[in-house]
Amino acid sequence: MGYHDGRCRSGTLRRYHHASSGAFSVNSAIVTIGDELLGGYTIDSNATWIGRKLIDIGVRTIWKSTVPDQKNEIVNALSIATEKADVVICTGGLGPTRDDVTRDAYCEFTGAELEMDEQYLKELSARFERRGVDMPESNQSQGLVPDMGSVIPNPKGSARGLSCSIDGTWICILPGVPAEMKVMMEESILPELGQMSTNDLFVTNIRTTGVMESKLHDILNSVMVGSPVSISFLPGFSGVDLRLTSEDKTLVKELSRQVYDLAGKYIYAEDWKTLEESVGDCLREKSLTIALAESCTGGLLGDRMTNIPGSSDYFLGSVVCYSNEAKMNLMGVRKETLESFGSVSEEVAAEMAAGAREKFNADIGVSITGVAGPNGGTKEKPVGYTCFGLDDGIKPFSRSVTFYRDRRFNKELSAQTALNSVRLRIAGQI
Amino acid sequence: MGYHDGRCRSGTLRRYHHASSGAFSVNSAIVTIGDELLGGYTIDSNATWIGRKLIDIGVRTIWKSTVPDQKNEIVNALSIATEKADVVICTGGLGPTRDDVTRDAYCEFTGAELEMDEQYLKELSARFERRGVDMPESNQSQGLVPDMGSVIPNPKGSARGLSCSIDGTWICILPGVPAEMKVMMEESILPELGQMSTNDLFVTNIRTTGVMESKLHDILNSVMVGSPVSISFLPGFSGVDLRLTSEDKTLVKELSRQVYDLAGKYIYAEDWKTLEESVGDCLREKSLTIALAESCTGGLLGDRMTNIPGSSDYFLGSVVCYSNEAKMNLMGVRKETLESFGSVSEEVAAEMAAGAREKFNADIGVSITGVAGPNGGTKEKPVGYTCFGLDDGIKPFSRSVTFYRDRRFNKELSAQTALNSVRLRIAGQI
Repeated sequence: MGYHDGRCRSGTLRRYHHASSGAFSVNSAIVTIGDELLGGYTIDSNATWIGRKLIDIGVRTIWKSTVPDQKNEIVNALSIATEKADVVICTGGLGPTRDDVTRDAYCEFTGAELEMDEQYLKELSARFERRGVDMPESNQSQGLVPDMGSVIPNPKGSARGLSCSIDGTWICILPGVPAEMKVMMEESILPELGQMSTNDLFVTNIRTTGVMESKLHDILNSVMVGSPVSISFLPGFSGVDLRLTSEDKTLVKELSRQVYDLAGKYIYAEDWKTLEESVGDCLREKSLTIALAESCTGGLLGDRMTNIPGSSDYFLGSVVCYSNEAKMNLMGVRKETLESFGSVSEEVAAEMAAGAREKFNADIGVSITGVAGPNGGTKEKPVGYTCFGLDDGIKPFSRSVTFYRDRRFNKELSAQTALNSVRLRIAGQI
Repeated sequence: MGYHDGRCRSGTLRRYHHASSGAFSVNSAIVTIGDELLGGYTIDSNATWIGRKLIDIGVRTIWKSTVPDQKNEIVNALSIATEKADVVICTGGLGPTRDDVTRDAYCEFTGAELEMDEQYLKELSARFERRGVDMPESNQSQGLVPDMGSVIPNPKGSARGLSCSIDGTWICILPGVPAEMKVMMEESILPELGQMSTNDLFVTNIRTTGVMESKLHDILNSVMVGSPVSISFLPGFSGVDLRLTSEDKTLVKELSRQVYDLAGKYIYAEDWKTLEESVGDCLREKSLTIALAESCTGGLLGDRMTNIPGSSDYFLGSVVCYSNEAKMNLMGVRKETLESFGSVSEEVAAEMAAGAREKFNADIGVSITGVAGPNGGTKEKPVGYTCFGLDDGIKPFSRSVTFYRDRRFNKELSAQTALNSVRLRIAGQI
């Protein structure tokens, strides 16, 4: 338990400002605009990112809406959002094409008129010139600004943001391009919002994986019932987060300790830390290196591990050996093993893990081979059947699990399970 | 142009039912429920999936909202949604924990009362028994059903859905677990919705990559202005989709042809087809195999290519050679090349591509090596600087591009660019 206790003691309890009602003092609403979001062309990752950033400074999002690029719908959404929240963050529809009507909607909602900002138009035109291209005709419209409220600078693009206060609600309109929206939030919106609150609220977010929500609920039932600390279960794709909230720091700490006592082996991190980050920290701390041999995941686990800056300290590489030839030629899996047990077998997984360890000269080799689906399943080894190997040169092991029918789902659960097994091995729990 | 022309002629023009107003006849609203969605713990992929499935049967989503696990907010959202749309799809909050209040909200909104479905409770309990576990106490509540409307069966889980009609709007409540929601949509909701429309609307969705929205706008301006066909620009992370819509099939076909003429080299697919699917089809069609050598992308490109069922027909594997040792030992990159030009260089990219081709005995080898960031950039090779190689044994090439500052963004753009170069090479355009 030293591993988790260490994390718990490291004290990631965050202090939030809040009103005495026991709730967050500043509530936000997010409005995202775009036909592409409604039609499912694009995942609304902006709203997710904004929600996190807001919670991190103690602002709780209580409503989120997505509307098409239609003036009346945008005006309607701004009106509902303004009624509900203290701050409204709205993204999208500020681009140069004729689909982009957010600025017009903003004017209708606020009663502002558009006027041309000649100075900005010059700057914009110069920016294009520096890149060696003429400014497209359509970008002209981005020089238009409302005659009330203020403009939010965009250091990464041509669409500037808009902001004003109406009925005590702060409305911010940002472009939908993620990189632009993010820098504008971080430079202009978040610092100001951080100043808007009073009082203190203590929150800790405990992340679990490898346990179903209902089972976790049962495990924790004894400490939850009657507790003055508010507990939320936040189920995600590959795990359940627990958020503990109270005005009393000691109570949160105490409940947090109880949660670790009862469910410690499922806990991999606190706050927003990902499993790959947590495993990466453990590897770095113990000066261990890791290498992978992936079959059915196709590179997904390597992709996840290398999302962490500095992962080259411990991640040496991966061989995606999709074919039997690759398993033999690149990972040293023996022909006899493949013929006797099949490419999806604990025996092959074991040899793949050993191969990864050896070829990359790593401390730990990890392997995944499975039937991702939708085809290729048999009665004995159905779609979802997946084998894992871990070889640390001390106590190698391999095992198998059967997941579900969906290909992507199987890939993601396989990567998660393999990564979690590294965590558990380092913690001495398997 | 043969490649694209082929695609265009293959006629993926879809026929939708719609009302004579020129709009879609059935409009939908999506309500997703959960603190985890608002706080950014979970990306709202359900809403994206539902939006796509609805558009595919000619139902347009005109509003989407996310609310917390709070009864009054859910009731409020159902009320707005019911007013706006003909069908409301609502997901989440049907689980067994005390956070889950959607059923209560549904009862308050519809005026229904809850009663215990003893028969279902028995089935549920038996289901747990078959898996060798006792039913957790908290699952008891899932036996409760409202005394009006109907129940939507859930073949994959314990939370059943609810459905009823109010003021001419069909309301469907589904669980938030993606696999359960999806099968319930496909088996119970979509077939019924498909019957609800009249008249015809013709839509084609043309997917582009490697061109900015404003540039594409300018390229197509001459054929868009005054066209009776409605054109939407749908910018996504790695490309822009164009949706052409009209009641007149001939007009859509004609404009589609004009779009191909003007912007053909940027077009990789139609409908929902992904770039990896499109490239996979081309490889299979020409009986070509491919292998990768990935550095900064860490396995992302292999992950994308293997998302396609049957990709083992053409995808042989990938070596994620994150360290210089791995580049030399596994991919045969020469020490002198690494020392003279650095690991991120067109020269190393060329040798990686050749190595991938050779080691996997593939027709085409593709490589990526770059400075993903946030650290490791220099003045000459800043963060975002990325080199690509492609070796088909005929006319190998390598080149470099500088992307942006964000690590994940760089990884995704790198994978997209490499994949697009395979498309362009097969089409004879580079």
